[in-house]
Amino acid sequence: MLKEINNRSHIADTVINKVLSAIKNHNMINKDEKIIVALSGGADSVTLIHCLNKIKEEIGFELSACHVNHNLRGAESDSDQAFAEALCKEMNIPLKIFSIDVSKAMEKHTSVEETARTLRYRAFLEESARLSAKVATAHNSCDNTETVFLNLLRGTGLKGLCGIPPVRDYLIRPLILCTREEIEAYCDINGLRYVTDKTNFSTAYTRNKIRLEILPKLLEINPSLYGGVNRMTAALSEDSVFLENMAKKELCAAKIGDKTYDSERLASLPRPILTRAISLILKERDIEPTAIKIKGFEEIIKSGTGKINIEKNKFAIVRKGKAEIQIVIQKYRKKN
Amino acid sequence: MLKEINNRSHIADTVINKVLSAIKNHNMINKDEKIIVALSGGADSVTLIHCLNKIKEEIGFELSACHVNHNLRGAESDSDQAFAEALCKEMNIPLKIFSIDVSKAMEKHTSVEETARTLRYRAFLEESARLSAKVATAHNSCDNTETVFLNLLRGTGLKGLCGIPPVRDYLIRPLILCTREEIEAYCDINGLRYVTDKTNFSTAYTRNKIRLEILPKLLEINPSLYGGVNRMTAALSEDSVFLENMAKKELCAAKIGDKTYDSERLASLPRPILTRAISLILKERDIEPTAIKIKGFEEIIKSGTGKINIEKNKFAIVRKGKAEIQIVIQKYRKKN
Repeated sequence: MLKEINNRSHIADTVINKVLSAIKNHNMINKDEKIIVALSGGADSVTLIHCLNKIKEEIGFELSACHVNHNLRGAESDSDQAFAEALCKEMNIPLKIFSIDVSKAMEKHTSVEETARTLRYRAFLEESARLSAKVATAHNSCDNTETVFLNLLRGTGLKGLCGIPPVRDYLIRPLILCTREEIEAYCDINGLRYVTDKTNFSTAYTRNKIRLEILPKLLEINPSLYGGVNRMTAALSEDSVFLENMAKKELCAAKIGDKTYDSERLASLPRPILTRAISLILKERDIEPTAIKIKGFEEIIKSGTGKINIEKNKFAIVRKGKAEIQIVIQKYRKKN
Repeated sequence: MLKEINNRSHIADTVINKVLSAIKNHNMINKDEKIIVALSGGADSVTLIHCLNKIKEEIGFELSACHVNHNLRGAESDSDQAFAEALCKEMNIPLKIFSIDVSKAMEKHTSVEETARTLRYRAFLEESARLSAKVATAHNSCDNTETVFLNLLRGTGLKGLCGIPPVRDYLIRPLILCTREEIEAYCDINGLRYVTDKTNFSTAYTRNKIRLEILPKLLEINPSLYGGVNRMTAALSEDSVFLENMAKKELCAAKIGDKTYDSERLASLPRPILTRAISLILKERDIEPTAIKIKGFEEIIKSGTGKINIEKNKFAIVRKGKAEIQIVIQKYRKKN
């Protein structure tokens, strides 16, 4: 019994130490900064706010929270909001509530999950801008491993294998080194209550299958899988960022006009740089850079001339030493 | 019934087409080259020799085979050899037999599997040199996926995620795009007999677990997993080779003496290049470049001075602008 208590108190220390390591390694939080915890009310975000509250004096940052009510589960959504409100009141942490209407914002070809995610991150960005603050989300090392496997299963390149970035723009993930098990034990030993989100998004099927059926088997082979994947994603991210930056530099050097590039210069680039440069050209025109689109554009760049329909009214064109995306404006008749 | 036959004959075509694609994409075989099939007698290598025999006139290469008898399973090993001999005689393909003594060659800290592998590849290299030929091994796309997952589980970097290279030095893998299922169907429809290796190497435990328990679950989520992983490893290999080559170039530029490098120049390299350059320095001294060794060496390079014990009597030293591995020759007393 005593051993179990010791072990549990050890886990609580582990979580705090891992949070401090993540903050230090990735330079997540500096003195006098403002940090907003994205507080859903689940075990992860409750642990996150509890940890950050513990160390805020030591590092010297200002802590607040925001909660996004997705209004997708009726009374349950409201009770989650009430939980977040009560928790922040108890901890004396300022809280901002965002109430969003997911179904109203739904567009063709996007799922409830995707729309909810887009709106949620829009709220985070807004709050981050309003307070000149960083937003801390509660992603953990199990989420990171699941993301790597999800991407691996969907088919991915280097970028997809980098998992969840510990820091991206205004976002920080201080729990990224902690496992779900450690987080639940942390809640337990600190007597923290939390809510459980019963939403079952359609694409959650695959993630759940990975979480419940595949990862347990992988953990039998390697019990320190999560740590190993964390180290892998960290190293791969460095490789990926390095290659992305090289591509940006080369693309900049190949620029000969507004969104127009020297196609011969592009053709001379090594493939890892060329494919990334093409991906940047596509993004510049709001085109999702899929493998097929990149390959098609690459082929006409290499051949020195050609035109392909990239999507709808957008064409990739290589002609007279120039490579670019042209947008053809067409008049459509309205269907009645 | 007719549908099934059509489907099966379709699979036989698929295998041949995938072999032709792999050969073309990776420039595996050119006219007038000599190709030696590494023939264990299993379904994979029997399919490989059958396919290559079918297309050898078309491409215009010379086909032979070699069989390595590991002498690990007594009479069964000899019967596998006899099978390979009979098959080659029937197909009128010259065959060279290597008979190796694995237990005699076993060293400390190496497994039977590792030793067998080392000796087998030594035989391939010898035969390749003797005939000025390439050696074709029968690795398939399932082996490739398993290797990626094995490495992922063990903890890996970009290189480990590149899987089995379709071409490496004198080795080619023409079956790399075919699944095990397609290969078995190919044997079936062509009435090819093959042997089944019942050896159960100790580390085969993990591979078997991945093959039998994990991959079937992943295939439920994405039935075209093997193709997806093949595309991923192909793209990652390009990234990896590009970074490796950059590191080689930078290391060459930083060379200031025999195995001695300008430490300040190294320190200025971006991490993805520096860590690869360090790995090359270690390999130059026959040191297995583990993450810990690379990190230790990196730290003293960055700090500008220091000495660490890399392994046994080998020290990484940074001093007066120079970085190198020094080997300290010590006299040991023999234990009686």
